[in-house]
Amino acid sequence: MDLENNYKLLLENLDKVSPLQKGERGKIVDLFKPLYFKRNEFLLEQGKISKYEYFIVSGSLRMYIIDQNDKEQTLRLGIKNWWSGDLKSFINKEPSTYNIQAISNTNVLAINKTNWDVFFSTPEMANRGRIMFQNAVIALHKRTIDNLSLTAQDRYQKFLKTYPKVHNHIPLKYIASYLGITPEFLSNLRKKSV
Amino acid sequence: MDLENNYKLLLENLDKVSPLQKGERGKIVDLFKPLYFKRNEFLLEQGKISKYEYFIVSGSLRMYIIDQNDKEQTLRLGIKNWWSGDLKSFINKEPSTYNIQAISNTNVLAINKTNWDVFFSTPEMANRGRIMFQNAVIALHKRTIDNLSLTAQDRYQKFLKTYPKVHNHIPLKYIASYLGITPEFLSNLRKKSV
Repeated sequence: MDLENNYKLLLENLDKVSPLQKGERGKIVDLFKPLYFKRNEFLLEQGKISKYEYFIVSGSLRMYIIDQNDKEQTLRLGIKNWWSGDLKSFINKEPSTYNIQAISNTNVLAINKTNWDVFFSTPEMANRGRIMFQNAVIALHKRTIDNLSLTAQDRYQKFLKTYPKVHNHIPLKYIASYLGITPEFLSNLRKKSV
Repeated sequence: MDLENNYKLLLENLDKVSPLQKGERGKIVDLFKPLYFKRNEFLLEQGKISKYEYFIVSGSLRMYIIDQNDKEQTLRLGIKNWWSGDLKSFINKEPSTYNIQAISNTNVLAINKTNWDVFFSTPEMANRGRIMFQNAVIALHKRTIDNLSLTAQDRYQKFLKTYPKVHNHIPLKYIASYLGITPEFLSNLRKKSV
């Protein structure tokens, strides 16, 4: 794991939201610690209190719940350059409602709640945080609308377009679950789109 | 419409996120203008660019799309003390993907994009904005999880508990659509819970 490159990715991510000011880089780096999870390891388990929010440097994650029929349902996926975590559990220090599992060997930068509060305490980071969460709200609304207004085929095409590299890293069964369809149905869609 | 009380509600809402500082109130008030919509009037129509974000002072709204089967699907509801709008359309100046309609006579405070940028330009409001959108992300995640993990009956009970006054203001057919069930099914649920 190349530590310097890991932090470079985080800083580039923040710089794109709004340009980093002189002196910000070093302070930000100090608030995060690198963690490594092997494939199938859990970053968070349902019922436990989430101690970290994660910035994904490499690898891939899935967030899932066990639904009322005892079936796994993939809520979200996570790859390089994305944030992940159970915000509600993390902020309120309450038991998490879902699991986060590494689906390939994964490097993250982890920030705890004390550092999180420091992280967003400057005007620059408060503004960047507002834009980051505003973008997250937009993305979540978009997903709801897509789920209601697009066919499964269109949702899959849009998924490939939005996240072109995801399907190389994430098993089809999790992508199917994320799209709200069966793996068999996804497999048929893929045959059609060849 | 009692103008002073309208702004009081907005200021109280912001003050709860984090306490307003001396001098903030007057500046915030200047950025919003009061608008009134009669029952059934549209605040935003699909395909138009959203010029405002809205803070609801009284009345009720629904946000909906026309799905692939030409059916109306309620994405979200809005009542007093909530924010509403199509953020994506508003921020990016692109055509809206949904409709916002008043379902009772409704008073809002509206902010345009120029004022929105001024609104969040202070360190205090940047921080408040970060927390507001962070809370919105948490609520949207929670809704996804509830939809997957709770029965329709439990979702309805939770809805009543979370928004105790909503069902007095919003027709059942829209609540049913929001919960992802038919009006008939909701009517049966209500009979059971008496």
